[in-house]
Amino acid sequence: MVEALAEARAAAEAGEVPVGAVVVVDGVVVARRGNERERTGDPTAHAEVLALRDAAAALGDRRLRDATLVVTLEPCPMCAGAAWAAQVGRIVFGAADPRAGATGSLYNVAADVRLNHTSEVTAGVGAEEAAALLTAFFASRRDGGGGASSPGGEPAGRHPGATG
Amino acid sequence: MVEALAEARAAAEAGEVPVGAVVVVDGVVVARRGNERERTGDPTAHAEVLALRDAAAALGDRRLRDATLVVTLEPCPMCAGAAWAAQVGRIVFGAADPRAGATGSLYNVAADVRLNHTSEVTAGVGAEEAAALLTAFFASRRDGGGGASSPGGEPAGRHPGATG
Repeated sequence: MVEALAEARAAAEAGEVPVGAVVVVDGVVVARRGNERERTGDPTAHAEVLALRDAAAALGDRRLRDATLVVTLEPCPMCAGAAWAAQVGRIVFGAADPRAGATGSLYNVAADVRLNHTSEVTAGVGAEEAAALLTAFFASRRDGGGGASSPGGEPAGRHPGATG
Repeated sequence: MVEALAEARAAAEAGEVPVGAVVVVDGVVVARRGNERERTGDPTAHAEVLALRDAAAALGDRRLRDATLVVTLEPCPMCAGAAWAAQVGRIVFGAADPRAGATGSLYNVAADVRLNHTSEVTAGVGAEEAAALLTAFFASRRDGGGGASSPGGEPAGRHPGATG
């Protein structure tokens, strides 16, 4: 999670909603990415999607059953779905996302036994720091007149409306 | 849907689970892609994700509120989430996916008012042909000893286990 938080901080410095993700296999980080939606204009460029794609390329296998996805914010439906599509073995996340979280808050895609793959989920790891990064980011955006806001000031700021 | 089906057929010819997607704005197709998971080894390379990414690049905007995503098979959680993340205005799909569908079958991400964006959904357009493509693909894979199978022979064959 320390490395995922570093990716989140780097994302914030680049003007992105600060979310970072790493993929770990046998204790080794095989991919690390931050949110890149603003820079790339790619609506799918959440940290998790990017890290899972990198991990599959690095390992030469689109099935990541032995991998753990570590991410600073609870995955949204797209990212929880991407973890399912990649058959990730385990998901560890930091801050919960009550507005769009899909591994426990609004949905629990990772634990849905109707799907043909489930992942172990561990929540709340490094949650305070992950949430603080999001809160600080949205506070600075409000102050700076960047046009973005996280309604309610919650850390759940990565949904489509959060950045305008 | 005719163009999405053409993408699905092209995917099948390339050895991919036959699913195709196009993105339409004002009656013009701005992106068209087929499933590329096998060729690329990218677990996120479902037709919808690829088409949405292309559409955002073509339009220079990651918000696709005026766009319609047309796809031959009901989107999975990842792809329904991607449509949400891209704020797609409308989703039109062909065959329902009772095993992994996330716009009506297992979930309805597109109609979830807890999320900050919803999309209009039209189901069943070209469903018979879309399903027939999937059925034929999995039948040929079984016959050919390709190692893939769609348990039950249903058209819902795009989930992680379907190809391996």
